[in-house]
Amino acid sequence: MNDVLVIGIAGGTGSGKSTLTHFIKEKFGDDVTVILHDDYYKSFEEIPFEERVKLNYDEPQAYDTDQMARDLAALKAGETVEIPIYDYAGYIRTREPRLVKPTKVVIAEGLLVLSVPKLCDVFDVSVFVDADADVRLIRRIRRDTAERGRTFDSVVDQYFTTVKPMHEKYVEPSKKNADLVVLHGGENRVALDLLYHKIKNHIEGAVNG
Amino acid sequence: MNDVLVIGIAGGTGSGKSTLTHFIKEKFGDDVTVILHDDYYKSFEEIPFEERVKLNYDEPQAYDTDQMARDLAALKAGETVEIPIYDYAGYIRTREPRLVKPTKVVIAEGLLVLSVPKLCDVFDVSVFVDADADVRLIRRIRRDTAERGRTFDSVVDQYFTTVKPMHEKYVEPSKKNADLVVLHGGENRVALDLLYHKIKNHIEGAVNG
Repeated sequence: MNDVLVIGIAGGTGSGKSTLTHFIKEKFGDDVTVILHDDYYKSFEEIPFEERVKLNYDEPQAYDTDQMARDLAALKAGETVEIPIYDYAGYIRTREPRLVKPTKVVIAEGLLVLSVPKLCDVFDVSVFVDADADVRLIRRIRRDTAERGRTFDSVVDQYFTTVKPMHEKYVEPSKKNADLVVLHGGENRVALDLLYHKIKNHIEGAVNG
Repeated sequence: MNDVLVIGIAGGTGSGKSTLTHFIKEKFGDDVTVILHDDYYKSFEEIPFEERVKLNYDEPQAYDTDQMARDLAALKAGETVEIPIYDYAGYIRTREPRLVKPTKVVIAEGLLVLSVPKLCDVFDVSVFVDADADVRLIRRIRRDTAERGRTFDSVVDQYFTTVKPMHEKYVEPSKKNADLVVLHGGENRVALDLLYHKIKNHIEGAVNG
């Protein structure tokens, strides 16, 4: 019997879901594979770059979620899979995928991973990382201006044009599909600790069993 | 070093918090002590019975929360405590308390346990069990008519007169103080499983250490 624990981690922009994912990855290293929904952005090669840039990448239709669901199911079944690599600068999928071997724990992270029944079905544990909208917006502004060289105005403009409407339409309602809602995302030591013990027991059980 | 894990479990009426508590108690038996906020209802002996019945028992002021916080801190420090026993028929505290010895895990359950900073400070893990208001109301109607011999109309009347306003004023805002929000309370096997592994490791650690 295969014994792969698949954890879905969703939440809005700036909620702290990456922090949670990094915490788990750091604690358990090679026993954990992280797969991002963003890895599965569709590659609109037939559309010129100038047009591709303007597409709404916060829409579910922007992702090849079927492929992600298939890959997660394959990993769960103990198979090696080819995960696409997305080139954010070119808004396109790179030619060479990365080869991912099955590990005891697989994390699937993304804004929308709990909004798709097909993905929810694969998850053994689904976590929605939650934070107030104002807190999330400030985190996004800080991150995008500091790390991505964006201006304050462009971040705010994008936030109110696509991010917030998509959040309200898809992300927030998907909270209902979570087994667990984690407040104060990355700084929530208690929630991290609970996940830690679950995963630890799973990995040790998988080793012993 | 004492090693008592204190878990606070809050949530509205009909949310499933008792189911969660019972699950843990059943799994770990004598290693777990359950203390209810309701055990600490104040005893208004100076007020005639007819008047006592009419008091608002969903208000924080109805509870002797200071005593509960002291008792939890004492249990955490490894001391035996006397927990009051409340007589629901007489709306009064009984004369003899129950003697509770410290155990590895203590659960403090109640509508309002996360609305009081003094209690939150004692909790190592705080859980808010959440469910939609309509689902909670139906559960309360079923329970109170089946188990408590109340009429449909009297349950609904009480719900809209005191339960709902108190929920919105105190219970719902206290969700923010939770480490973890558990949806679909008692039927949420994944959340139960996460708590199970945390508590199991704690008890085994306490045994080994």
